[in-house]
Amino acid sequence: MIRDQYMLITDLPALPDGASVRLRGWIRTNRNNGHVGFIDLNDGSRFSGCQIVYDMDADAALKPASKYATGTAVDVTGTLVFTPDARQPFEVRAASIVLVGGCDSDFPMQKKRHSLEFLREMPHLRTRTNTFSAMFRVRSVISAAIHSYLQSSDFLYITTPILTGNDAEGAGEVFTVGTCDGRDFFGRDACLTVSGQLHVEPFALAFDKVYTFGPTFRAENSNTTTHASEFWMVEPEMAFCDLEDDMAVMEALIRHCIVTALSDCADELKFFNDFVDKDHTLLQRLQTVADSRFASMTYTEAVTALQKAPVAFQYPVDWGLDLKTEHERYICEQIAGGPVFITDYPKDIKAFYMRQNDDGKTVAACDLLVPGVGELIGGSQREERHDRLVARMQELSIPVDALGWYTDLRRFGTVPHAGFGVGLERLLMYLTGIGNIRDTLPYPRTPGNMIF
Amino acid sequence: MIRDQYMLITDLPALPDGASVRLRGWIRTNRNNGHVGFIDLNDGSRFSGCQIVYDMDADAALKPASKYATGTAVDVTGTLVFTPDARQPFEVRAASIVLVGGCDSDFPMQKKRHSLEFLREMPHLRTRTNTFSAMFRVRSVISAAIHSYLQSSDFLYITTPILTGNDAEGAGEVFTVGTCDGRDFFGRDACLTVSGQLHVEPFALAFDKVYTFGPTFRAENSNTTTHASEFWMVEPEMAFCDLEDDMAVMEALIRHCIVTALSDCADELKFFNDFVDKDHTLLQRLQTVADSRFASMTYTEAVTALQKAPVAFQYPVDWGLDLKTEHERYICEQIAGGPVFITDYPKDIKAFYMRQNDDGKTVAACDLLVPGVGELIGGSQREERHDRLVARMQELSIPVDALGWYTDLRRFGTVPHAGFGVGLERLLMYLTGIGNIRDTLPYPRTPGNMIF
Repeated sequence: MIRDQYMLITDLPALPDGASVRLRGWIRTNRNNGHVGFIDLNDGSRFSGCQIVYDMDADAALKPASKYATGTAVDVTGTLVFTPDARQPFEVRAASIVLVGGCDSDFPMQKKRHSLEFLREMPHLRTRTNTFSAMFRVRSVISAAIHSYLQSSDFLYITTPILTGNDAEGAGEVFTVGTCDGRDFFGRDACLTVSGQLHVEPFALAFDKVYTFGPTFRAENSNTTTHASEFWMVEPEMAFCDLEDDMAVMEALIRHCIVTALSDCADELKFFNDFVDKDHTLLQRLQTVADSRFASMTYTEAVTALQKAPVAFQYPVDWGLDLKTEHERYICEQIAGGPVFITDYPKDIKAFYMRQNDDGKTVAACDLLVPGVGELIGGSQREERHDRLVARMQELSIPVDALGWYTDLRRFGTVPHAGFGVGLERLLMYLTGIGNIRDTLPYPRTPGNMIF
Repeated sequence: MIRDQYMLITDLPALPDGASVRLRGWIRTNRNNGHVGFIDLNDGSRFSGCQIVYDMDADAALKPASKYATGTAVDVTGTLVFTPDARQPFEVRAASIVLVGGCDSDFPMQKKRHSLEFLREMPHLRTRTNTFSAMFRVRSVISAAIHSYLQSSDFLYITTPILTGNDAEGAGEVFTVGTCDGRDFFGRDACLTVSGQLHVEPFALAFDKVYTFGPTFRAENSNTTTHASEFWMVEPEMAFCDLEDDMAVMEALIRHCIVTALSDCADELKFFNDFVDKDHTLLQRLQTVADSRFASMTYTEAVTALQKAPVAFQYPVDWGLDLKTEHERYICEQIAGGPVFITDYPKDIKAFYMRQNDDGKTVAACDLLVPGVGELIGGSQREERHDRLVARMQELSIPVDALGWYTDLRRFGTVPHAGFGVGLERLLMYLTGIGNIRDTLPYPRTPGNMIF
């Protein structure tokens, strides 16, 4: 047993002043004035490390420590000293600093500040920087918050398949799957899922409230700051549910994530606010949203507002056209000043499975737009009427036979139901203010890029 | 808003006798004696449903309800009546039963008992049977229990990539990924991950305790009851950790899952005990394991015990050969009588990254074997010594250059570290007694089989 011999930095504040401690971790910085040295030790147990002070004049055995480079793993024994007047509330005065694993001089994570682009080339080492230490902590906390919120709201977690013969969006931009030796493994064409929605609907029609949360894939050749080829999506689906119910759950889930980030990632969000967010208003923006209701307007109202806007958009605005990111951002950033639902989109720019409104022109769909990102959630009430669903599929030349299992759900005890999908990475962009989706993913995959 | 108008069956026990209620759900069975009818209504909120009693003599308006077939969705108002002496502790006396969605007569989930094989052909409808209602509840609870246990033990959740250029096991049995139009999307060969371990190790060396939990893939052509082509795996990884620490975490995690299943899925496990488990001892077996320490023996001891065993195995037993499922099951079922760790396997039958023991022959690896399944967990301490790791890779002709990022972790502050992988579906087989991995997956994928 190794682990029991050590304490974690996160446990130190609860110990008494003067306690004997033994820590281990990695050196972030190490400086000295020839007499006394200072190591910033990080053991991964929290965002910030612990200052280790070693007095080489008092104990010559500590002298080798001054040679330990950034990145070195060490084993430290010493005394905990509270320093209420210093920048760090405590430090450890070292009695011994033992080398565990040295660090070669080509270690790229030196003290100087690297660009995010540079760090993207080394996903295995950028984990040891402040930005990514903060990001992956927030990612873990928010992923867990999504699970725990939905579980405590009696949603069942259903893992829908990654390998599928269906293409939920009908978009065709899918990755195909084969074997090295060309075997026809499944006896039919296989591709990677673009959404778990179609597969999770049957579970909502048995279990009432369900969600899928897993990786999804798009083979789109779009090199933007908000698109990745592999990303995580949480997709709740509820029976006996209309669009209004659906939107209430979306808002509650997003608010829960914001509140959890503010409370459980305070150090990390402060770092993003001070060092990443361009106008240092991240914390204030999140707090405002946590405290207020999300705005809502129909697509028709949004188009009217955009047409009246005193700005020249790159893309045209006209009823029936899809909103582009510039429009979405204008609506939430300039008109609503925060997250806003756009509802009741024209049926011709939305998916076949969305419930047709009585006007014959729109569907019971909504997108949630957030500042800095644009679309964060897409949701809809599903078409539960068998005849309407099949007619719409035929209009759009979607193969009714291949999706017979899906349309059959409307023949066997159909009920109103609705759901939505949240992109985890876009949510993280919104919560941290980081500008590129590549910096929210442990190993980002985008066109032309798959490192390791 | 639709949802607020209704109560859930799971909420009824807390209401007063005689309360007015409004429920909705699906009819599991509907029978009547010409005067009074009885509907077993299931709304998905819990494993068992609620009996709806409708008195057609007292109210002729209830007569149409007698025609509603299994699978029909209905909206019921009535009065809650506690029935402490009956088999069900409460029922609802209906005042009205309104049709929501009818059920066509070709609905296959009729009362008669179907084989699991038959049900596998319709993953979108088997959700409405008792077996799968129970299974997917347990699956959700156990998935959530894994997350909450690891999160509360300060593990960070890291989503390692599905699309990768590395093959962790060096096995070659991987699925390859392309695009419909043959584009070279990533500029290099892409395949589906067989394990997140290599990708999660860098995170352990920054964050101390981490885990990945997601789908993994094997293109093996094995049609067995314990292999699926797509399955979920949780893989914790810890820095400053040896095999002994590692095994302590494995045991604690599995025990937590058992205890959670026994407490939070009592109805479901009772169903599996009574109707699925072949000797109806599931609950007793799980309780015994929850209360006792897991056994442990070295591979060498296991081979000696197997050689002395008074049975004729199909496959040979000799030091240096891998244990087959028949051997694994004999060890845990006949020798240990429960879960057992086998440690210190010959290095030649284990992966390159496992830490070499001082004997020069074995590695610091362990498998946890459980009755009915065989191998449930594989874990090891990782080789943290750069020279040993590279030498072993060269011996095995594993490309050192392509995995330079992985070996580099041993040059930049290397520390002892260890981890393991638990197959979620095998854990579910163990917890429910179900005999085929296909019945633990929402949409099982196996050679030649990918439905929907």
